[in-house]
Order: sequence, then C-alpha cells, then structure tokens
Amino acid sequence: MPRDLTFTLDALRAAYAGGLRPEAVVEEAFARLDALNDPGIFLHQARAVALAEARALGSPDGRPLWGIPYAVKDNIDVAGMPTTAACPGFVHVAGADAFVVARLRALGAICLGKTNLDQFATGLVGVRTPYPVPRNAVDPALVPGGSSSGSAVAVARGLVAFSLGTDTAGSGRVPAAFNDIVGLKPSLGALSSAGMVPACRTLDTVSLFAHSVAEAWELFALTAGFDAADPWSRPLPRQQLAPLPPSVTVAVPDEASLRTFGDTAQASHFRATVERLRHGGASVREIDLAPFYAVAELLYTGPWVAERVAAVGARLTEAPETLHETTRVILAPGLKFSAVDTFKGLYRLEELRRACALALDGIDFLCVPTIPCFVTLEEVAADPFEPNSRLGTYTNFVNLLDMCGITVPTGPRPDGRPGSLTVLARKGEDSRAAALALWVERGGAAASPADGPADSEIADGEIAEDEIGIAVCG
Amino acid sequence: MPRDLTFTLDALRAAYAGGLRPEAVVEEAFARLDALNDPGIFLHQARAVALAEARALGSPDGRPLWGIPYAVKDNIDVAGMPTTAACPGFVHVAGADAFVVARLRALGAICLGKTNLDQFATGLVGVRTPYPVPRNAVDPALVPGGSSSGSAVAVARGLVAFSLGTDTAGSGRVPAAFNDIVGLKPSLGALSSAGMVPACRTLDTVSLFAHSVAEAWELFALTAGFDAADPWSRPLPRQQLAPLPPSVTVAVPDEASLRTFGDTAQASHFRATVERLRHGGASVREIDLAPFYAVAELLYTGPWVAERVAAVGARLTEAPETLHETTRVILAPGLKFSAVDTFKGLYRLEELRRACALALDGIDFLCVPTIPCFVTLEEVAADPFEPNSRLGTYTNFVNLLDMCGITVPTGPRPDGRPGSLTVLARKGEDSRAAALALWVERGGAAASPADGPADSEIADGEIAEDEIGIAVCG
Repeated sequence: MPRDLTFTLDALRAAYAGGLRPEAVVEEAFARLDALNDPGIFLHQARAVALAEARALGSPDGRPLWGIPYAVKDNIDVAGMPTTAACPGFVHVAGADAFVVARLRALGAICLGKTNLDQFATGLVGVRTPYPVPRNAVDPALVPGGSSSGSAVAVARGLVAFSLGTDTAGSGRVPAAFNDIVGLKPSLGALSSAGMVPACRTLDTVSLFAHSVAEAWELFALTAGFDAADPWSRPLPRQQLAPLPPSVTVAVPDEASLRTFGDTAQASHFRATVERLRHGGASVREIDLAPFYAVAELLYTGPWVAERVAAVGARLTEAPETLHETTRVILAPGLKFSAVDTFKGLYRLEELRRACALALDGIDFLCVPTIPCFVTLEEVAADPFEPNSRLGTYTNFVNLLDMCGITVPTGPRPDGRPGSLTVLARKGEDSRAAALALWVERGGAAASPADGPADSEIADGEIAEDEIGIAVCG
Repeated sequence: MPRDLTFTLDALRAAYAGGLRPEAVVEEAFARLDALNDPGIFLHQARAVALAEARALGSPDGRPLWGIPYAVKDNIDVAGMPTTAACPGFVHVAGADAFVVARLRALGAICLGKTNLDQFATGLVGVRTPYPVPRNAVDPALVPGGSSSGSAVAVARGLVAFSLGTDTAGSGRVPAAFNDIVGLKPSLGALSSAGMVPACRTLDTVSLFAHSVAEAWELFALTAGFDAADPWSRPLPRQQLAPLPPSVTVAVPDEASLRTFGDTAQASHFRATVERLRHGGASVREIDLAPFYAVAELLYTGPWVAERVAAVGARLTEAPETLHETTRVILAPGLKFSAVDTFKGLYRLEELRRACALALDGIDFLCVPTIPCFVTLEEVAADPFEPNSRLGTYTNFVNLLDMCGITVPTGPRPDGRPGSLTVLARKGEDSRAAALALWVERGGAAASPADGPADSEIADGEIAEDEIGIAVCG
C-alpha cells in the first residue's frame, strides 16, 4: 500500500487513519530514494534514526504532523545529525534542533535527513556543491535550482511530504520553480532562524517546500511563532487563510521591464497567467520594475556580500581551499568594502525602499515570474556566474524590501517546462499572498480571486500557543 | 510692553490678541540678544529678513504659530540663509527650507537665525565649534551642552519661544538639561529630516526645545508628518496628548547601574524624582541598565562612527584642516572599519535590542537622569573627550533602540544646578512620554500620573492634514 501512496499531508493522514504505520512510510521513502539513484539529494540520510523515531512515535495524540516524513536543508540544525552547509570543512554535529525543527518534532513529523544546497546557501543554481548535484525532477538537463536544491527535489520526487529550505535571495523560490512545486517564503522574522547557518543574517529566513499551497500554508501556520532567542524573530499577527476581498489589485512588470533573457515561452506563459488573473476579476496594474531591479543589484554588487563573508568567517582568508571555487570568487569582494561603503549602501537601500513603496501604493500584490528563464547544467558549466545571476531577477529584491512571497506552479509551458508564478506581498501579509496563490493553483479562470479558499479544505493556521499575537503593520 | 513679555507661545498669543505686532517681538528678541552680549548663540542672525517677514505676515488667518519667533540649529536648512554645521568650510546658502522649517513657515513662525552647535553635531558639550562657545544660561562655568548648544541657550535665555535642534546621540536632550528647559526628541521618522545635515543618517532626528512640555508637544504635533521625500520618514499614528492609564509602570536604573561619576547630588536628586513618581502612583521597577549601556557603547566604539565619516564626506581625508581638531580625532577611526565589522555591529545591536526589549517587557516608560553629572568648561578644556563621553550615558542608546524621549526640568538641586529627568518610551509613543513629562513638570506629588494633562491646557496635537495616519506598533 505505501508504494502507491502520494506523500502529501492529506494522503498520509488518510492512510494513517486507515491503519498504516509511520515506519512503513519511512521505509517506503528510503526505498523510493534508493530506486531514484540520485546521490545528490541528501547529504545525510537518517535511515536508522528516522525508523526508530517512527517506531517510537506512539499514538497521534492530536499531533497534526504525526508520522509525516520531511527533509531539512543542510544549513539548518537537526539534533544529532551533521550540519555541513555543503562545506565538508564546516561540518559539526548539531547539539540541538533548530527552533523550527524542534517544533516539527513536537508536532510528530519525522526528519529523513539533510539535503544538498549551494554551499553556504550562496547561489540559485544548485550546482555549487562539492557533493553530487541533485538531478532536476522535471528535466535532467536543467539545473535543480538553488540554493535549496535537495529540499526542492526531495519534495518534487515524492520522497517527503514537505521540506525546509532557506531563502535569502530566492533560494526558497527558484528551486520550487525549477521542480514544479510550491515554495513559501515567509515574512522575515515569522519563522525563527535560530539554528540556521546564516547566509546574510539580516535577510535570511527558513522557507517551506510542499505539494500544494494549502499544505504549505498549514505548515507555515504550524511553524511560525515568535522566538525571543532569535533577535530577528518578530511578533507578527496571527494569520488565517481567508478569502480575498472582492477586488484585489495586482501589480505586474510592464512590457519594458519584463526580463526573460530571450526565453519567449517564459514571457508568453507569464502573460497568459496574468490574463487568468485579470479574467478572474483581479485589477492588474503594469508597473516599471526598475527600482526593484536596483534593489536586487545591491545584494551582490554592494556591501551585502560582506554579510556572506561574516557568515563564513575566517575560512575565506585562512582556509579558502575548503570553499567551493565559485563561492570563493563570489565572496572575495566582500572583504574590500568599508564601513562607510556599507552605510552608503544602507542609505541607497532606504531610498529605493521608498521608491518601491510608492510604486506599490494602492496595490495588494506584486506578481512576477519566479524565474526569468531556465538554465541548463551545460550553461552553468560554461559560465558559473552569469546564468546564476539571471535567476535572481525576480527574487533578489524581495527580502531587502521586507516582502513575503509564495511560489506556485502554473502548469507546463508549450515546451513542457514548468510554469511558475510568485505572489509577493508586504511583510505580515503571508496569508493574503497564500490566498491568491491558492486561487492561481486551482486554475483560477472559473472563480474570482475573491472566492478564495474554501475553509473546509485548509487547516486554518492555528499558530502555536506560545505565539505572542501582536498586530504589526506599516 | 514686549520688554516684559515672556516669549512663550501662550504669552505671545495673548499679547498678539491684545494688539502687539510681530515686528515688535522680533525687534525685542534681537534687543535681548544684544543685551546678552553672547556672540556664541547665533552663527547667523537674520535680523533684516525676520523683521521683513514679521511685517509681511498679514493677519493670523488661523495660523497657530503666527508671529512666534524661533531659532534653527545650523545643521538644518532655512532658505536663503547659510548652513555651516559649525564648519566654515562647509558653508552653503540653502536653496530651500528643510521640511520642518517649511511647515513652521506655513504656520506663521518667524526664524530669527541659525544657532551654534558642536561641529557636524558630533559632541554633547557644545564647545566643539570654531566659533565662540554659547554661554550656559544657568551657570557660566558649565558647558552649554551640545550638540544643539545655541538652540537650547536661545530658548533658555528667552530670546525665542522655541527652537529646532537635532538629536542623534543626545544632542536634543543634554543641552536641555544643562539649560533647564524642555527638550523633545521625537521617535525616529516622526519629523522629516529632509534638509538636515546628517550626523548618523540612520539615527538622526530633528528635535524641539521649548519652555514647557505642553508647548513642546504642541510644536511636535504641528511639525510631525510623513514626508515621502525623506526615506527615513515613517507614517506614525496620529497622536494626541491624553491622560495616562490609571497605573503606569516606570523602569529606572537600579542602584548598581545608576552612573553619576561621583556627582552625588545628581544621584540623590534623581532618587527624589523617582520617589515623586512612586508617590504619585507610578509602579516603579528598578532594572539593570547594562544592556542599554552596551548599546550606547556601540555608537562611538563600533562602526557607527563611519556614518559620521560618510556624512562629512571627503573632507576628513582631503581637507582635514577644515575640521575642528576634536571632531577630526573622533571621526578618524571610522575610516578603519570594514563592511564585515559593520554587519557584525548590526548583529550585536540586534541582539542587544532584544535584550533591552525583554528588560522593558511589561514596562511603560524608562526614566533616567538626562545627564549623569555636570561638566565644566574647565574640565573639557583639560580633556576634550572623556567628560563629553560621560554625558551620553543616558542618551546614546536611545535612537539605536528606536525609542522616543522627552527631557523635563525637575527643579534645582541643592547646589542650584538644574535637575532634569528624561522620560523614554517605545517608538510612536511620543504622546505617552509627553503625558508623563507633563505630570513631572507640574510637580507631580499631588496628582497621580493618571490625572495626566487637562485637555483645556494643551493644544491637542492636530497633526497636519497631509499626514497619513496609520497605526504602527510592535
């Protein structure tokens, strides 16, 4: 029976209700992994531990994720497992769970292991790792996307019901687009980053990959919560997935600022998706993305590269040979920026934030193609930098602007590659972004966005009890 | 008649209602300045211009500051007047009013000129200027306090009804304490800083000096407002000065963390003020200020010095002789910090912010002595650095923690030097801080803080109509 089971929350719960045991699911998950023969997905497989945990789970006792298998990006700590950040020299065995992992454990979820990534989460391709590269789940010629490559592929391949990624510049969205799954990038500070290896500490968040918007949302609602131990954790409003207001205004890039680097199928697929939004009743406003691109540029050409240097520590100067060559080349300039440069960068960001806020005045959502184009393994082998940069077109600016977002599949393009939309909203509006994504996921053309989710289909985000629910806005 | 007139808003309005003309007030103000024979207060006297403006004012037409004379710190632009920031080499004639000045002009106020300061607003003593030092209004042996020295002295001497200062590390509070007047330091972003020469751009605010809490509050309410042109301007809630809740909780430094550098009169005066608060019904909680002091230390020992370098620009390296010697020595280390240092400083700040937030959990206000001790001209002549540093003890941490504050006289100490309390609150709670300060100003012992202000006595802060009133908290 587990062999035919789709590993979604819904299907697993139904199967468990029918008497299936969690250890059978864990065994089936690893059997699937073995059959796949892709050594790049997991950097650490917790076969014995996961099985033991499954056996020891006891009865559900109301735990909503009882027996749900998941995977964790290898820059997030799971107690007793090694954390490498895809840098073998960095390896250490975690003494404690990251905040989010601890929460998932308490809810009954079972971690199957740690997944591959672009080293220190620096990259959007998924090939910047000294380990084997995970194969793209849709087309082996494509990169898997990164930096959360293994976590996205593990979900797309049906090995787990969900996985944890991280997202600083797009690492939780780009691989979702490349592997045709949902990626939820929370508002900064909504999920604690305690126990996560930082990339750019001021811009990092844990993210979620799942098989559907409703399941991604449920997982977000279950893991979100204020953590006093994480200085970047913020008390955000208790959110529930609710129908959208009757009329929503959606901004999209105007023709002149839509960048697809010659991938015409991506442009036409995006236009078709926008048409669906319009057809469904959304008021669509075309805006110039220039100030957003200017923000994006800051991330890798400005002093923020120094944040990545700060995260890697003395390794860059004292043991550079332990770093992936591409990573080393990217980080090196971070040593040259001065404090004065940094503050000037922060000033420039503040000016651009204002420009972007004014551009979004009166607008509910910004919808963008998740990626401007696809990138193949061959292209990245020929040039490890430029194709990677392209992929951040619609993702790099998001955390610098303190926005939240959710990536949702929009069906195949004519060439079979997966279409994907990212819905972006202001910080704290995660539930609204999810509501629009849900509508897009369900086809959208028939119903209007205002019809939103049906309550029965979604586990309303009960944020855990230790959550301090404080209204935050502005 | 103007000769006997106290230049408060109330007294001036009453006199104007009785037929007095604004030009007579302007003439009287300059006559007082001449009589004072203190060439250090104003760096630019706008005698002819102010008189011409007074004559051209026309009828009040509902302008609430019609004919009210005020002074502007010389790091804030007034159209047509030179701005020097107390650095002669920096001088330029402003082409336009700073946002706040434009607003005051529209409300009918008359600017009498530009006032002295610690060069580029770097200092808390008021003597770091190449121009004559303004004399302390209470005791000529004391420093005037800075950096807004001239603006504070101009109010204390009765030359103007109010003045504009700026406050990054205490420049709007320390000189208020030294000259026995009220200093209101708004929440960051409440008053636009457009047209202000930056000191630390991320931590700067325009501030107000006035003769009473009620008048300071009215001026704040009249000048606060969102300014899209200033990236640091924030939409803050429309605030009114209202009675405090029946029971307020006030944190004060505990015995071990109360620093007075041997000034025992300051310690006992502060304790007496705290007793008054307690007697008036406030719940007083003693807390350890250690994390607040750790924040304060970041400001001058950490990378934030580089913000001051960024503000001064190439002058420090290319024309250092144009800088005040002390300023030069203070700024020089700012050149040495790297981008990595800066981000590490930001991380440390974020951790300390969390520690301070937890320390203030359940607390409404933090009340501190504005200054830990007094400093004489002689002491600063002997050591230009250390006595200055002391003065920032209770002010340096405030903007780094995004708090607002108001400094209020608490009556003379036994030695005749002015007592002063600063009430601090969270960002956006300016009106609450003002309400407690008002209660302190009025003697406090009889009434409880909950009695707060009487509505009839305060012009309720009608924030101007172009204000976008959005609730902000958390």
